This record gives sequence, structure tokens and C-alpha cells, in this order.
Amino acid sequence: MPMFKPIQENEAKGKVKEVFDEIKSSRKITEVPNFWKYLANSPETLERTWSSLKQVMKEGALDPVTKELIYVAVSITNSCEYCTRSHTAAAKKKGATEDMIKEMIDVVGIANQNNKLVEAYQVEVDEIYK
Amino acid sequence: MPMFKPIQENEAKGKVKEVFDEIKSSRKITEVPNFWKYLANSPETLERTWSSLKQVMKEGALDPVTKELIYVAVSITNSCEYCTRSHTAAAKKKGATEDMIKEMIDVVGIANQNNKLVEAYQVEVDEIYK
Amino acid sequence: MPMFKPIQENEAKGKVKEVFDEIKSSRKITEVPNFWKYLANSPETLERTWSSLKQVMKEGALDPVTKELIYVAVSITNSCEYCTRSHTAAAKKKGATEDMIKEMIDVVGIANQNNKLVEAYQVEVDEIYK
Amino acid sequence: MPMFKPIQENEAKGKVKEVFDEIKSSRKITEVPNFWKYLANSPETLERTWSSLKQVMKEGALDPVTKELIYVAVSITNSCEYCTRSHTAAAKKKGATEDMIKEMIDVVGIANQNNKLVEAYQVEVDEIYK
Amino acid sequence: MPMFKPIQENEAKGKVKEVFDEIKSSRKITEVPNFWKYLANSPETLERTWSSLKQVMKEGALDPVTKELIYVAVSITNSCEYCTRSHTAAAKKKGATEDMIKEMIDVVGIANQNNKLVEAYQVEVDEIYK
Amino acid sequence: MPMFKPIQENEAKGKVKEVFDEIKSSRKITEVPNFWKYLANSPETLERTWSSLKQVMKEGALDPVTKELIYVAVSITNSCEYCTRSHTAAAKKKGATEDMIKEMIDVVGIANQNNKLVEAYQVEVDEIYK
Repeated sequence: MPMFKPIQENEAKGKVKEVFDEIKSSRKITEVPNFWKYLANSPETLERTWSSLKQVMKEGALDPVTKELIYVAVSITNSCEYCTRSHTAAAKKKGATEDMIKEMIDVVGIANQNNKLVEAYQVEVDEIYK
Repeated sequence: MPMFKPIQENEAKGKVKEVFDEIKSSRKITEVPNFWKYLANSPETLERTWSSLKQVMKEGALDPVTKELIYVAVSITNSCEYCTRSHTAAAKKKGATEDMIKEMIDVVGIANQNNKLVEAYQVEVDEIYK
Repeated sequence: MPMFKPIQENEAKGKVKEVFDEIKSSRKITEVPNFWKYLANSPETLERTWSSLKQVMKEGALDPVTKELIYVAVSITNSCEYCTRSHTAAAKKKGATEDMIKEMIDVVGIANQNNKLVEAYQVEVDEIYK
Repeated sequence: MPMFKPIQENEAKGKVKEVFDEIKSSRKITEVPNFWKYLANSPETLERTWSSLKQVMKEGALDPVTKELIYVAVSITNSCEYCTRSHTAAAKKKGATEDMIKEMIDVVGIANQNNKLVEAYQVEVDEIYK
Repeated sequence: MPMFKPIQENEAKGKVKEVFDEIKSSRKITEVPNFWKYLANSPETLERTWSSLKQVMKEGALDPVTKELIYVAVSITNSCEYCTRSHTAAAKKKGATEDMIKEMIDVVGIANQNNKLVEAYQVEVDEIYK
Repeated sequence: MPMFKPIQENEAKGKVKEVFDEIKSSRKITEVPNFWKYLANSPETLERTWSSLKQVMKEGALDPVTKELIYVAVSITNSCEYCTRSHTAAAKKKGATEDMIKEMIDVVGIANQNNKLVEAYQVEVDEIYK
């Protein structure tokens, strides 16, 4: 009784094929990553997720590298190995250096620690932060 | 049977007073934030935490604004209200615009969603990410 | 220095054997799942956990399929692979279709996203929800 | 230095007003809930989030009550008070009884416990669940 | 449309009254804490939860103070204010000193940090820990 | 595009070598655990993390075994396999018995359950705990 299987590119049809093609062309890659192949089990979810991600991660007030680093920081905090690995790769591809990644990790480490110290001491919000 | 109380500035002595003074001078603020006042119940913890935070959040390969945004992203993911509020304030003070903060929030939202879609579909790590 | 090992069925005695037998007969399965084999290291924990689970997951105001789907939704949110896989299997066995599982996943995804948007914007509870 | 403020209905314009109107008419409510008022700070996020939520929560293989219960189960697991309160209200409005909500809570409780017992004993996935 | 209300002691009947009485006598307190008053909405849940907690928290290979400190450590990590406050009070009542609580907090802080550093660097399990 | 690789002992120089030597001598082990080998990619992080951990985990008001058990309890709650395995090993080495570990796990299980029951019922903090 297996869970879901990835939909391979040669099985993709209609809406799924369209999204797969767009992923490859917009990212300049030759193979669709597994995340999208699994989501393709639910074509509507695939389309909505891809369209949202594209909208959110595009250049804006923040550059794409910063956005990828934030994405990885969240993924580390949530212990998502796939997300950590794939978006670290994306960050590097978009120009993140090893030093930038290491510093992001340091921030993630200390933020996770201090978040819990705040809970432990039940720190009240200062008036100026309200 | 109350939990810990904040150590007020006029109660601070020795190591605690030194750290309090450094926090105020280095951040150019006139009042020590509550987080540090609570940590002061344990002077060694106060000193270690301040010294680590200073080291981690300083300008490096990443600029201080980016570091604050990453800190806030982690704090939102961990549902830490105090940390979200205080480091959003810090980010603004260091130059983050409202648009930068909103875009960071969008990334946090979609990363949290996709992290769970990855778990739900038990997505295997692609060879190229290993 | 290994962690705990599963207690195999041929090693089971007394209280452990009784619970193992009940698990197999009530679920109509021929092999005790690993979760219970590991819990058997602590017979009292095994018995309490099995007895609680049986009480909670039985037909009530909610049908067993809905209960399994809720169980999986929590397990995905907590990134528990074993729990996600085993209770997805249980949900299917009790009658959940693939479409039901996919829709449950979609809800889990968006709930995780919106939970964090609420934290990010520090949304106040509306009067009517209090 | 406050965080974001809710956009009130009489301040809503263009895209924001359209979404606000749709929320009220489709849900048959006379006041826009705070979640949407805060999201309105970022009109694109408001529109994307509302459109995704509408798509995900609609009747499908799962009925709307079950979807709301799953949404609440995730929100409890993530300790999101606003989401727990507002979607419990939504579940009731769509027909969930108090007994259904209590049973959902029981499942959430035991799933959270067992998820951690699995981590604690480092339970290996059974062959039949792979 | 309010959520659940606590069941007050003068409303308690049957099984609920019995558990309420046992909580007060075994803990030597004159008022039932809110946690149990809310759980009383579901008498079966109240009884099961009380009986499990009593079994788990009793003196064993670990003394009751250590058990309370572990309980608080988990509650801090999960950001549960009620649980942190009530079990810190319980720990103190059973003999925990302020220094013990502060050291527990330090461990919680660094464990949360290092847990995430492990995820960030995707540290492989050493052979000797398998 | 791999993530970080562990720095092997024969590659260690300067600050990294010093910390590696101290880890081995203070813990009386002959091989540096992977956690530290990965952190060595960022020598400042290695040094700060080692120095903090040493300070926090040393004998104090709490004995080292209790501290390790608390560390493991947090790691289970955060689903960190590496941390759970390595600190369970450390706890045993410092004198924790199997029964102590099993009782710690029971507390972790029930605390995680009750933390969520508190969220589910939105339990208000009793006056005596404030």
C-alpha cells in the first residue's frame, strides 16, 4: 500500500505537462525536480503551488538570493531536508556564496535559541514594540 | 508563585550592569529591552547570549538588514510574538522598508506550506541535491 | 551503544503478548507494526498507549476515516514520516480514497501557510471569535 | 514603531475592496474578519490567499465540515490561537457539533503524543508502509 | 460563538466530580486548575488524561522534580505558556530551586539551537550512534 | 551541488584543530563526532557553539545526567534524529539507565499531548500561576 508516486515527465499530460514545461524553461533546467513530480498527482495543487511560488519568489523589494535564504531558514527551522537541500541549491545558483549561507545558518541557530529563551522567561512585550 | 521577574536597570550590578550598558550604547537606545532584563536573572546566560548575538548579527557576507529579516522569518515560523515584534522593529531601524517586510512574510508563508507538502507526499531528494 | 530495539513477537510475554494479540485480532493483521514492537520496551507505556488509541480512534461523532485523516494531518505538520505513512495506510484500509487524501493534504498545506501569516501580521482575534 | 495595522473596510479600494466584498457575500457575513484586513496590507497576498483558500476548502471528495476540522487540527498543532478560534467557529457554522470537535481534539492530542514516541524510539518504517 | 467554557467545581457530577476530588486530594490543593476544568467538557478525556499523567509523573527511576523539569522543557519548546507556567509552579512545589530551573532553561536554549544547526548542515549520524 | 562536507581531523588547522583536540580530551573519545566536523566549516561557529555547550552542560544545580535527559527531551520534541541519538548515547555514558530514558520518553509523550490539549481548549492561565 504505497503512498504517492512521482508523475514522470513522459506521463505528464494537459495542465501537468504545461506546468512541467514552464518550470524547466523558466529555471533553465532539463529535468523537473521531484517536488513538482509528486505534486502532479493533484494537477490543481501543482498549478496553484507553482503559480504562487513564482509570484512570491520573483525579484521585488528583496532580491531573489535573499528570498531563497529566507526560504532555507524557514525550511531548516521546520526540519525539512528536501526543502533545505533544494533551496540551498537554488540560492547558490542565484548567486549566494558559501559565506552567505553559513551566516544565514548562524542567524537561524541563534534565533531558534532566543525564541525559546523568550518563552522560558515569559518575556513581556516592551511598550515600544506594541 | 510567580515566574521570573525582569531585573530593572537600577537593580543591575557587576556583569549585568556592564552588559546592560553595552546593549544601550551599541544599539543607541536609552532603555534596555525586556528580553535582556529577564535574561539578567542568570548573568552568565545574559553575557553568553549577548556576546553570541552580537557576533552573529554583525555585518558580514550578509548585511544587517538581511540578517534581521531572516531572524524574523524564523521567529514567525516558531510563533514567537516577542521576537517577531522586536526584530521587525530592529529590521526597520536598520533600514528595512515595509515592502521588504511584506515580501519576507510572503516567503515565510509559502515556505511553511511547501515544507508540509513535501512531508505529505514524502518527496525523495533528487540526485542533484545530494 | 544502540538505542532501543523492537521486541519481536516471539519474545513477547505477559502483558506485552496480550496487547500484541489484541492489536492483531482487532485490526485483522498478521504482524504487529514496528511502533508497538518498540513501545514494548516499556510494557506499561505499550498498554496505556494502545488502550488510549483504541478509545480515541473508535467510531463516534466522527467516523474512523475522518479520524485517520485528522491523525495524518497532524503527523504531516509534525514531520513524522512513520506516522504519516502508517496512518495513511490505515486511512486507505478504512475506506479513504486517493482524492480524499489529496484534499486533506491541500488543507494541511494552506493551514500551515495561513497559521504563519497570522503570526506574521500579529492578527488580533475578532470579537465574534472570543 | 507599530507592526501592520488592519485595513478597515471603508479604506478598501480596487482589488482589496473586491476581495472584501467577495468574502462577505460568499460567506454571508456582514464584517470582514481581521485576518483578511491585515493581509490587505499586501493586496497581491490578499488576493492569492483568498483565491487559494476558496479553491482548497470547497466541497470535494471531503465535505466542508471535515475540511474545517482538519484545518483546526493543524492550527492547534501549530499553536495558532486566531486560526483555532476562527476555524472552530467556521466548522460550527458549517454544521460541526460539539461532539465532533471534542473527538477531533482527542485525535490531535494522541497524534501529537504518538508522533513523539515514534521519534523517541526511532521507529523504523515497516516494509508494508513503504 | 464561544469555544469551550471551563466546567466549574459546583457543576461537576459523576465521573468528573470523582476526578476533580482526586486531583485536589492527591495534589493537596483546594481548587482544581483550569486545565482539568476545560478537559471536563469531555469526561472520558478528563479521566484518561488524568490517569495517564498520574502514572507517568509518579516517582520511578527518575524523581518527580526531574520529571517536572523535563515536562517544562518540552512545554517551552512547544511555546505552551499555560504548561510552562503551571509545571514550573509544580516543579517548585516539589522542590526545584530557581537555579535548577535556570539551568534547565539554558539546556533548552542550546538544544533548540543545536537541533537546527544539525538540520542546517545535514549532519550524518555517526556509526557509533546507530 | 552538494551541501557542506565534514572537515576531517587531518584537515583541521588552527582554531578548528584546537577545538577538536579539546572535544576529544574533555570527553575522553578518540574520534570527533560529525556534528563538530560539520560546524568546522565555520570556525567561529564551531568555537562559539562548543564553548557555550561546555558552559551549559557542566555540573551545576543540575547533574550532567539530568541535563542530557532534558537535552534529549527537547531533541525528540524537535524531531532531530542526530541529536536524539547522540545525546541519548551521552546520557548513557554519564550514567543514565534504560529505565531513566524510558521514563523521560513517557514524560515527553504526555507533555506533547497535553500541550496541544491546552491549545485546543484555549485554557486560560489560573491566577495562581501568573
